[in-house]
Amino acid sequence: MREVAIVAAGMTHFGELWGASLRDLFVEAAQGALTAAGTDHLDAIYVGNMSAGQFVGQEHLGPLMADHLGMAGVPSVRVESACASGGVALRTAFLEVASGASDLVLAAGVEKMNDGADVTAILATASDQETEVYHGATFPGLYALIARAHMAAHGTTEEDLAWVSVKNHRHGALNERAQFQRELTTDQVLSSALVSEPLRLLHCSPVSDGAAAVLVCPLDQASKYTDHPVVIRGTAMATASLALTDRRDMAFLDSVAASGARAYEMAGIGPEQVDVAEVHDCFSIAEICCIEALGFAPLGEGRHCARTGETALGGRIPVNTSGGLKSKGHPVGATGIAQAVELFEQLTGASGDRQVHGAEFGLAQNMGGTGASSVVHIFQAV
Amino acid sequence: MREVAIVAAGMTHFGELWGASLRDLFVEAAQGALTAAGTDHLDAIYVGNMSAGQFVGQEHLGPLMADHLGMAGVPSVRVESACASGGVALRTAFLEVASGASDLVLAAGVEKMNDGADVTAILATASDQETEVYHGATFPGLYALIARAHMAAHGTTEEDLAWVSVKNHRHGALNERAQFQRELTTDQVLSSALVSEPLRLLHCSPVSDGAAAVLVCPLDQASKYTDHPVVIRGTAMATASLALTDRRDMAFLDSVAASGARAYEMAGIGPEQVDVAEVHDCFSIAEICCIEALGFAPLGEGRHCARTGETALGGRIPVNTSGGLKSKGHPVGATGIAQAVELFEQLTGASGDRQVHGAEFGLAQNMGGTGASSVVHIFQAV
Repeated sequence: MREVAIVAAGMTHFGELWGASLRDLFVEAAQGALTAAGTDHLDAIYVGNMSAGQFVGQEHLGPLMADHLGMAGVPSVRVESACASGGVALRTAFLEVASGASDLVLAAGVEKMNDGADVTAILATASDQETEVYHGATFPGLYALIARAHMAAHGTTEEDLAWVSVKNHRHGALNERAQFQRELTTDQVLSSALVSEPLRLLHCSPVSDGAAAVLVCPLDQASKYTDHPVVIRGTAMATASLALTDRRDMAFLDSVAASGARAYEMAGIGPEQVDVAEVHDCFSIAEICCIEALGFAPLGEGRHCARTGETALGGRIPVNTSGGLKSKGHPVGATGIAQAVELFEQLTGASGDRQVHGAEFGLAQNMGGTGASSVVHIFQAV
Repeated sequence: MREVAIVAAGMTHFGELWGASLRDLFVEAAQGALTAAGTDHLDAIYVGNMSAGQFVGQEHLGPLMADHLGMAGVPSVRVESACASGGVALRTAFLEVASGASDLVLAAGVEKMNDGADVTAILATASDQETEVYHGATFPGLYALIARAHMAAHGTTEEDLAWVSVKNHRHGALNERAQFQRELTTDQVLSSALVSEPLRLLHCSPVSDGAAAVLVCPLDQASKYTDHPVVIRGTAMATASLALTDRRDMAFLDSVAASGARAYEMAGIGPEQVDVAEVHDCFSIAEICCIEALGFAPLGEGRHCARTGETALGGRIPVNTSGGLKSKGHPVGATGIAQAVELFEQLTGASGDRQVHGAEFGLAQNMGGTGASSVVHIFQAV
């Protein structure tokens, strides 16, 4: 298997982007990566997208995006694993380059959620239609169940959850592409409207439009495109039951632990060697579950990390320096690629006020549903 | 790149399967392949599906199908390229095995179209939302434009189109899994209701439920699962503009020609060495365009092949021995895999009354939209 590197990245602003269509967003992000690499050639494209069919009435994004990028003809396929669609797009691009079938592949994610659709109902189609959706469950409710289970098992409090939002908004305030570039206080979080007890509005990531893109190629060809490639040392995916009711423990994300373990093994490192991480904080409880499953905190101790600053910029293991899904925004199909963009910039020293100095290893963890799918990538600066 | 083989296949009946859900269909096909291979282990799963989000309110099929197959945990991702979703699932599985990342991968396709949804409107989301759907175009109308362009360029007649349906129903009558197991006459086709002039009802593939699955592994491990593996000698994808209006020639499918040329090059053979082929006859005109683009007939001569019997069982190059999409049925996400199932059986001598005797090379061509994506696989018996 060939060694594979990221050589360029591009990304739109995330937010309510009423003036840009799905295809506009994709092209802006993709063109950003192509311009950075100084190329107008691609061997293949993978488009991460959860649900443009439902959001804007458009399936079949592969050829659409290739064409609008001026590359009609180039092989181009959409991959979907709900909110992990970006992560699986990157993994599939990795496999195509690693196999030797292609030399320069674009992995991009895009979602246009603010276009008049019933967002909560559409997102719910990523949960189990027969055992969850049919009975009225939506994701805030399902993550509220996870939060309650975590509270019961580990004593996690609403204030612990609030600190995750506060920490991520502090990071996002430094990110000019973030949907919300302002800090929050725990009081603001704890007095925001209840969405699904115990989760309040400011525990929840927003509804967002946006796109992100990275270019991958064999490491031994990276110098054609950049002086600062970032190697993909580990890539792994794992699934769990789609329905929360079928899990052995609602407070622990088995798929995150399994995908993390496989990625660590492939990369030959452990969690203590990771310098900076982006994890899937679609709701604040998710970040706590993820850092525990990835080994950044012992089980039951993850709830303290935002408050103590361990996972803040300057802390032991900065998590979601981009602002995370909570502050940066969460255009669902784009999120996994946006994580890779943040880490590509961190590992090439391009993160400005958010820079984690001397970072060598970065980890991205992207998940779909209530953790029914999880994808982990480990990157290394070279 | 490792050599990759298909070692087992499974498939449901295609048709109006009111008693089976999306997950039931997937499990039946996948379990068929696993049982044939004598294994209950998988390294990864790729699910080809066009639009379960719209058809039955269910995205995120990767983990759902892994779980219902009794394999929660196994990496499992949906890939989509409209009606070419099955073909791209097989191609992605190929790349994962070729790369060395996995040893045994399931490529399966599934679609549940008969569940009360507005099928024509949902299928139309595979065409260009802004320049086609918005103005009222649906696929029968778009393929009618292709047919008119082909008639104008090459003198193709309604009777030529009818012979494609007659030939494929003759094949499908021999296929116990086909949706329509009965022969047709040209008179029946030509007196059936007009759908979109010049296309009549019996020029159109039906609305279908169904699933199909194949198992792929490195050729040098194939003997663990079967005595009769079929090697994937070529795999290629190409795109074209999503919108028909942006094509240089509406009567010629550039993506089919490009994907075919790349697959022939990879396999080291030409069209004259192909013994049996499955091509994407979603409408009868499509089969004519595809056999011309793949080199089975000179440009403008494809219209004669069904009538003369050149593409019939016993002819020069039997096309759609399964009955094709027209007679076998067209559960859109399953179609590309069902083509591979037919050719796996043909190349292992398991096609019964439809057997093409002594077949060594088989070609499958699966496309999405009006040919905006096309995937070609070339298989060889070993």
